[in-house]
Amino acid sequence: MEALLARRARAARSSVIRDLLRLTERPGVLSLAGGLPAPATFPVERIAEVTSNVFDLIGPTGPIALQYGPTEGDGELRAIVADRHGVDVTQVLITAGSQQALDLVARVLIDPGDTVVVEAPGYVGAIQALRASEPNLVGIEVDADGMRTDVLADRLAGGLRPKLVYTVPNFQNPTGAVLSLERRRHLAELAERYGFVVVEDDPYGELHFDAAPPPPIRSFGEHVIGLGSASKILAPGLRVGWMIAPASLVGPAVRLKQAADLHTAGLSQRIVAALLADREWLAGHVARSREVYRSQAAALSAAIPDGLVAAPCRGGLFLWVTTEPELDTDRLLTVAVEHGVAFVPGSAFGLDGGPAATMRLSYSTLDRDQVGDAAARLGEALDHMAAMTCQSSFGGVRSSR
Amino acid sequence: MEALLARRARAARSSVIRDLLRLTERPGVLSLAGGLPAPATFPVERIAEVTSNVFDLIGPTGPIALQYGPTEGDGELRAIVADRHGVDVTQVLITAGSQQALDLVARVLIDPGDTVVVEAPGYVGAIQALRASEPNLVGIEVDADGMRTDVLADRLAGGLRPKLVYTVPNFQNPTGAVLSLERRRHLAELAERYGFVVVEDDPYGELHFDAAPPPPIRSFGEHVIGLGSASKILAPGLRVGWMIAPASLVGPAVRLKQAADLHTAGLSQRIVAALLADREWLAGHVARSREVYRSQAAALSAAIPDGLVAAPCRGGLFLWVTTEPELDTDRLLTVAVEHGVAFVPGSAFGLDGGPAATMRLSYSTLDRDQVGDAAARLGEALDHMAAMTCQSSFGGVRSSR
Repeated sequence: MEALLARRARAARSSVIRDLLRLTERPGVLSLAGGLPAPATFPVERIAEVTSNVFDLIGPTGPIALQYGPTEGDGELRAIVADRHGVDVTQVLITAGSQQALDLVARVLIDPGDTVVVEAPGYVGAIQALRASEPNLVGIEVDADGMRTDVLADRLAGGLRPKLVYTVPNFQNPTGAVLSLERRRHLAELAERYGFVVVEDDPYGELHFDAAPPPPIRSFGEHVIGLGSASKILAPGLRVGWMIAPASLVGPAVRLKQAADLHTAGLSQRIVAALLADREWLAGHVARSREVYRSQAAALSAAIPDGLVAAPCRGGLFLWVTTEPELDTDRLLTVAVEHGVAFVPGSAFGLDGGPAATMRLSYSTLDRDQVGDAAARLGEALDHMAAMTCQSSFGGVRSSR
Repeated sequence: MEALLARRARAARSSVIRDLLRLTERPGVLSLAGGLPAPATFPVERIAEVTSNVFDLIGPTGPIALQYGPTEGDGELRAIVADRHGVDVTQVLITAGSQQALDLVARVLIDPGDTVVVEAPGYVGAIQALRASEPNLVGIEVDADGMRTDVLADRLAGGLRPKLVYTVPNFQNPTGAVLSLERRRHLAELAERYGFVVVEDDPYGELHFDAAPPPPIRSFGEHVIGLGSASKILAPGLRVGWMIAPASLVGPAVRLKQAADLHTAGLSQRIVAALLADREWLAGHVARSREVYRSQAAALSAAIPDGLVAAPCRGGLFLWVTTEPELDTDRLLTVAVEHGVAFVPGSAFGLDGGPAATMRLSYSTLDRDQVGDAAARLGEALDHMAAMTCQSSFGGVRSSR
């Protein structure tokens, strides 16, 4: 049957990260590799509480949470999301996480061969969703202030004509960078000048450790689609996200979503609506979540072994680490797993391999003690690698492992 | 921004049925137009009961129902579905309703221009999902024994080379037809001989009023992908369905689903797993649901106005009705809505308009009294149409309506 596969199924390669993560699932391995939010931040009791009332809400064709619902999303949830983001309700489409929003945007906008700009290094899940539309992907580098819009501007001046530019402006995955105010304005201007769409994916924006990030790119221009999610402020298993877009794009996205899954799970939508509507509780909950992440990030930063340099971490889920330039973090991962710790090597985040002497460490699913242990094991793995390299350089016997 | 739309977004036209259904939402209209299951069959109390326990199940990274989960689906749910269908667990992919399963199958198998066979008349949602892959759609007629596999065989002998054949073998939407045992075997044979895949979509199979339908097409050959759903036996708002396919197709479908939404909503999956696992309760529940539909179907059949002929109804959600050959049911719908009743005209179910003198009536969301009233109003609308036609034929003054 393999012979029957369509072009786009052949294009959707198994992601490197997916294969790597299998390694990290070995028992006894402390994983800094995950992209999972901290379970300590899930408001389990509050979710259970609102869930017990959710079935009482009855519409003309039965309980709202259980019957088929509108493709655009639960009316109340759409209104709450529109209100939170200061847009009209017709600009909001509720999706199965922001991942589905990105998939729909890709399907709505990208024909095979269209040029699409992503961040390098960037979010692997986005690159994978975009790849299914068979674009010509171009990576633009990221520094401490986010995507290098000056580099993008040069490429545009040189003739690059993307249809879409994808960015995670706040606490970027994997670098943790925050796109500066100036670059937000610049990117919005470039979008208008060259007629492309910016997709502004913001799962982490509320998880800031000190000052809130600058206003969304969306506030600087009209050629911007915003993606949001309940995954990091409530819980990812609910699979509720949203797209904020000009009405001219919401219509086609709704028609594709109708074909894709009819609508987002009703029970999840009702739970998210109830929790987002309770603004006072939500503000306290998000503040507590920030504390959890801030404290975990501090614990990991403090324990980082010698020879590794962590980028400043101002929010989100990840610590971006640079190693000695000659270190191959793909090889380090294999050694690290044998020392009982895992991370994601930088190579996983590029279009054809990312920067080799980098790695992403997640501090979200381990507790403080485990974070310390994980860092210590990483140190041992580094020592082991150094010893191997040394033996190898001097023609000595290589480690038998 | 409309200029930026991709080819497939332009292909995903707003469905006729979607536009028509807006008409039926007018207050005071009794709708026989919906495709919704009967809310009386939703096991609300049982769902609330299992939901209250669902958050207690804690995995290594937090509550299973709330954390990110495997793209393939919740392990326990996959195992239960595999067991119910007598297949290996690796053949099961849990999806956001069977609609998503169909969308993934289409994306995995269909390149633009590939030939795809659908039933005519057939399920509009499937036609829409398939259209997003820009196939060359070919309709094969349906009679009381389901898809005319003899007609398909003739077309194949004449050179038709579909990549995929889509069928709803049990209580087909819209005709209610059940594909005969002989045709199931025939279709599976044709699939092997000509190298296409049969997609066997079975949302209604358990809702039989007397004898259960014949064994699945899947049991007669290997070139078959089965789609199933919890929507009609539990509740559609949960958005849980599944695909049963050879492992060689599950792999690519999983990779596309990972890009599409990462995984199906965790809470919904846990609820469905808990309810499907309780076989004794489930058997009783499904038996009670059959009774609800059987009784509603009988009430509507008994009340059908003169001039309409209903096909025998042996299960599912719909009554398929044939009118006098000269009657245009599109026009009848407009008149009917003014008389306070709605249905879906046959034209909605074809590739370029279905049979004009037909309509689909759903008996699932109205109670017995309402079903009688709806049928009476339909009779009034028919009388009104007849009077209009009569005046028109004799050159008289047309109704001022």
